[in-house]
Amino acid sequence: MQDSSGSTSAQAETFASTNSGCVAGIDLGGTNLRVAISDMKGKSLAKWSCSIVGIRDANRIIDLICDGVNSLLEKRSLSRDALRAAGVGVPGIIDVDHGRVIATSYLMGWRDIPLTALLEAKLNVPVSIDNDVNVAAIGESRAGAALGAADFVFLAIGTGIGAGIVLNRQLYRGHAWMAGEVGYMLVPGVSETPAESSAPGALEMAVGGEGIKAQWRSRWSEGRSALPIDASATEIFDSALISDVIAQEVLQHSARTLAYAIYNICLVLNCPLFVLGGGVGVHPALGQAIRDVLRLRNTRAQPKVVSSSLGTEAQLMGAIYMAIEAASARP
Amino acid sequence: MQDSSGSTSAQAETFASTNSGCVAGIDLGGTNLRVAISDMKGKSLAKWSCSIVGIRDANRIIDLICDGVNSLLEKRSLSRDALRAAGVGVPGIIDVDHGRVIATSYLMGWRDIPLTALLEAKLNVPVSIDNDVNVAAIGESRAGAALGAADFVFLAIGTGIGAGIVLNRQLYRGHAWMAGEVGYMLVPGVSETPAESSAPGALEMAVGGEGIKAQWRSRWSEGRSALPIDASATEIFDSALISDVIAQEVLQHSARTLAYAIYNICLVLNCPLFVLGGGVGVHPALGQAIRDVLRLRNTRAQPKVVSSSLGTEAQLMGAIYMAIEAASARP
Repeated sequence: MQDSSGSTSAQAETFASTNSGCVAGIDLGGTNLRVAISDMKGKSLAKWSCSIVGIRDANRIIDLICDGVNSLLEKRSLSRDALRAAGVGVPGIIDVDHGRVIATSYLMGWRDIPLTALLEAKLNVPVSIDNDVNVAAIGESRAGAALGAADFVFLAIGTGIGAGIVLNRQLYRGHAWMAGEVGYMLVPGVSETPAESSAPGALEMAVGGEGIKAQWRSRWSEGRSALPIDASATEIFDSALISDVIAQEVLQHSARTLAYAIYNICLVLNCPLFVLGGGVGVHPALGQAIRDVLRLRNTRAQPKVVSSSLGTEAQLMGAIYMAIEAASARP
Repeated sequence: MQDSSGSTSAQAETFASTNSGCVAGIDLGGTNLRVAISDMKGKSLAKWSCSIVGIRDANRIIDLICDGVNSLLEKRSLSRDALRAAGVGVPGIIDVDHGRVIATSYLMGWRDIPLTALLEAKLNVPVSIDNDVNVAAIGESRAGAALGAADFVFLAIGTGIGAGIVLNRQLYRGHAWMAGEVGYMLVPGVSETPAESSAPGALEMAVGGEGIKAQWRSRWSEGRSALPIDASATEIFDSALISDVIAQEVLQHSARTLAYAIYNICLVLNCPLFVLGGGVGVHPALGQAIRDVLRLRNTRAQPKVVSSSLGTEAQLMGAIYMAIEAASARP
């Protein structure tokens, strides 16, 4: 566990006005738990993180979250009463209305966990939860590349691939909280073999982080590249920029496949803006190559495609804004 | 023909109650114009149609629509004042807010035609217009296979392929009125070559009516089938039901490709119901074969897929309901 706050503490102010107090943003990832506290305008005050590899018990995760929040409050000399709300991003299918994690293939496979109720009982403040990609979309819409956009799609491309869909300034979540599960999309070139529901989808198998590494391995041979056979997606895209021929092939194939997925989403939604996020999706070479493919297709579905401006902070920022909005709704 | 005189107070009183009077539903197709009048509960009173092949001038189309409406009113001995509103379905991109046909590849390529204003000036009643597939979706939702459904997709499969998307009981039309243009969708097996924006899309080229006929021609050889080389999609699917092997191949390939498109739409929208319509889409063998393909895929996106219950009447019924709703909004 580590503290990573910046400046020294200021004495807690009074928390009577709506701009007083602080909120907690929580990024509950597959391997790491990250917590931040911020003021009521979204300015980060301090951050904390720890590994959660191998932990399945929800109560242990709750305890870790509380440890993080308490340590950050203490760090900034804020009283426990200063905390006004918390927001949490969780990978998986989330019933936002009832604050439940319906299912996830991360967190050792949680099923039907009442995360909001468990956290509210411990933190004693309103807690909002949502799918991690949706939370990142909130981050980009409040403080990132989609600021001011009424309609956009946040496409997270990391190990998995998923979309956060914002229509008319609202997250669109679908009838069973599964809108935007585009990692399973079928585009030309991906495997048509049906996968188990717990297995990665066809699109992410082809062009998620692992899929890109697999493309690299299948093309790689000794002496053809300065990169090793076990290069990461980001290293491969970096090499494509400095004229590595195999890396350029992998980049082009990945960009074409992802551009097809964006094109298909755009045909359905007629959405003017796509924000590319996630560890793989933010790479500038990938964004440019995707734009080049889309430019060649017909103009009926020609969205603007930009990179996330919050990068790996998108989810934590989104969680913070969810908390600020929850606190504002319950002054 | 054009009677635009105001109604007398006695006549006005006759139609003061919301259930009095009649409306016109207009299906402006690529080759035919169909008009129906109905009572205020959607019961059809009379129908009229004519060919519009080769007519580009919007004013001539307007005159033909008025001819149709007047002849139907006369046929049912209804006064001109009985007409309370009209609804129109038009193939193409429609600005519903301003009642304009932005663009269409039918109607000899109309561009930016203020159809609502032109028709209101002649008919002297409120006129609502929308994209033909959206109008058919309204028909299915008010009186067809989607009755009572809050969220569904109407997938029209004829010469072209398009989707009418209903979310939370409202048509979702996209930021530039182009949501649901899924005839361009890229799924495994379709051509990846970018098409001109006026040309058919990749999906409709593969499995629209003409695409299915092309599949048939490429597989057909003398003596292998009782059907001729120039069989229609419907004839091919009929033959598949009576064990014609080539017809079954075409049916299976078409169903798989369309099932992939439905699956992709469902991944984006997480929509529980798809209604298959259009001349090709309503064939029961196609519906069953699509359901068989979808059943093999993972359960995250497993929508119910049913056939249109209004068939070729979906659009005319939708136009009638649009008119009834417009009349109710302006009593």
